[in-house]
Amino acid sequence: MRLQPGEHDALIDVGGLSVGHAQRLDEHWATGVSAVLTPGGATGAVDVRGGGPGTRETDVLVADHLVQRIHGVALTGGSAYGLAAADGVMRWLGERGHGVPVGAPGQVVPVVPAAVIFDLPMNDWGNWPDAELGYLACENAGQDARRGNIGAGTGAVAGPVKGGIGTASGVLADGSTIGALVAVNSSGSPVDPDSGLPWLPVEGLRAPDAAEVEAARAAHEVRPGRHGPIARPLNTTIGVVATDLNLSKAECRRLTVAAQDALARAVRPAHLLVDGDTMFGLATGTGAQLPEPGDPGWAVRLDEVTAAAAEVVGRAIVRGVLAAEPVAEVTSYTRLYPSAVE
Amino acid sequence: MRLQPGEHDALIDVGGLSVGHAQRLDEHWATGVSAVLTPGGATGAVDVRGGGPGTRETDVLVADHLVQRIHGVALTGGSAYGLAAADGVMRWLGERGHGVPVGAPGQVVPVVPAAVIFDLPMNDWGNWPDAELGYLACENAGQDARRGNIGAGTGAVAGPVKGGIGTASGVLADGSTIGALVAVNSSGSPVDPDSGLPWLPVEGLRAPDAAEVEAARAAHEVRPGRHGPIARPLNTTIGVVATDLNLSKAECRRLTVAAQDALARAVRPAHLLVDGDTMFGLATGTGAQLPEPGDPGWAVRLDEVTAAAAEVVGRAIVRGVLAAEPVAEVTSYTRLYPSAVE
Repeated sequence: MRLQPGEHDALIDVGGLSVGHAQRLDEHWATGVSAVLTPGGATGAVDVRGGGPGTRETDVLVADHLVQRIHGVALTGGSAYGLAAADGVMRWLGERGHGVPVGAPGQVVPVVPAAVIFDLPMNDWGNWPDAELGYLACENAGQDARRGNIGAGTGAVAGPVKGGIGTASGVLADGSTIGALVAVNSSGSPVDPDSGLPWLPVEGLRAPDAAEVEAARAAHEVRPGRHGPIARPLNTTIGVVATDLNLSKAECRRLTVAAQDALARAVRPAHLLVDGDTMFGLATGTGAQLPEPGDPGWAVRLDEVTAAAAEVVGRAIVRGVLAAEPVAEVTSYTRLYPSAVE
Repeated sequence: MRLQPGEHDALIDVGGLSVGHAQRLDEHWATGVSAVLTPGGATGAVDVRGGGPGTRETDVLVADHLVQRIHGVALTGGSAYGLAAADGVMRWLGERGHGVPVGAPGQVVPVVPAAVIFDLPMNDWGNWPDAELGYLACENAGQDARRGNIGAGTGAVAGPVKGGIGTASGVLADGSTIGALVAVNSSGSPVDPDSGLPWLPVEGLRAPDAAEVEAARAAHEVRPGRHGPIARPLNTTIGVVATDLNLSKAECRRLTVAAQDALARAVRPAHLLVDGDTMFGLATGTGAQLPEPGDPGWAVRLDEVTAAAAEVVGRAIVRGVLAAEPVAEVTSYTRLYPSAVE
């Protein structure tokens, strides 16, 4: 049974959050920042399953730790250098009084977990997101449902083709909404070279012509780079899956497990040593209520939610790849298999 | 059996690393950054045991993850805002070519895990370490064996008294060295109010006069702040314990377990929800060699090393408290119990 998509079929269908992107894309730059802001607070969890993560503030998300609600998540390019983007997201939130109160009114410390993708080879050396670009992503935040070469997905590459930002949402029977936003930059491929179709089926695509599939085979044998093939692939898929249910930190952790399952289905191979695949799970609590742990129906309901999370994350990944456009020598799925989208 | 201290009785006795501090201490500021630099690389691990951590790049330290050697650790004030200091440490290392190679020669990504202490109430609002102060700590790095109100310990408070940077070292029978550097900013106290002595014995102190112990009891009932008692204690002790042995990431993890044991002995209560107690364990590999895991003598040797780690970390904590000087209304151990150090 497929989920009914939300109004925008995007993360921003989840109440209590906003999404903003900032990027630089020209002949010297292809990178950016995506901010998911939850100024009213959201419970959260994280699952790091790739071997090469770049993260900050993930330790606050452990279920038995102090902070119960976080104020945003920063997804960014720039490898570990890009962690500076979270400084800007913190500043933006802090200036507006969103954070953990630590003193006089307005004196707050925003909690902003962050993760990075490795997109450095898509930029001149030294060009990576900084605190200003993180701040700008917050300035741009709103009901942004866009996909493709924006935000943290600007310089993304997914196996043989351009990657990007994907987003999707679904509405559950109880009226709760689940949404996802993913920056797809996987070392492995989202495309089955034998069929030319994404590993995860998606509506609106048809099987590409056999001749096209044959012609595209060579693309699967190289690692595309901005100026032609490169020795080592770009890597790391990061994302946020969120719901408006009232989940605890431990329950949010189940969302991240489902999100990593979706990544395993959509990208093959996934979770390599060179990937830093990291998924955040958020619950804003602005919508329907889940039963308390152990109450009748609790586990069944939560398992429905996490199954929906996997579906939405998988769709976000595929849609990110379909929406991405070529950058320099890096082709796109729709250019490699034009007959699939005719 | 007590360890023989190293030449400086400080972390810098461990080969393959340097220590640098930068701080601001005046009527508006009391905070800083301490950088432990391992430009040649060090294996590392982390243990987060307090409930309120502020960290970055801790996920790279998981034993089965890609990065095998890190290039420094940043300890900083400023709560989560202070994580920006690691941006400056990364920049300093990167400019000098120290990091994971990711492209042409000199193009590197330094891996710099970091942790913060909560010292915001010791500063005017908005005053916290930034990337520039992190960079300056690296500029200052060398054979620095100082303790007290420097670096990340500048604004530290430990229970009823001023906290600070503590450091110590020891030399094992095999010639290997173990050293520690700790920023003591514990919610709990390092001092037994009934004796006026540190919970962990340390050479050179005598039991304070009974009248002094009585007079000091009131100090244990309040949370000292810059301008007088405050409602909630400052919190979080962070540190680095390092050896010149050739430890694996998994073996380094044993160092961090021992370091947290030392914290549990030296500070009571320790590891509170409001503390973010985080310990890093590093091995530079420039000295003696440990047998391979499973080889004869391996476990016994490693357990000797970790027992030494606990001793050195414990001594670093106590020495940090003894070396700290009063800041404004926050008294010091030596001022509270002058007869202990006469």
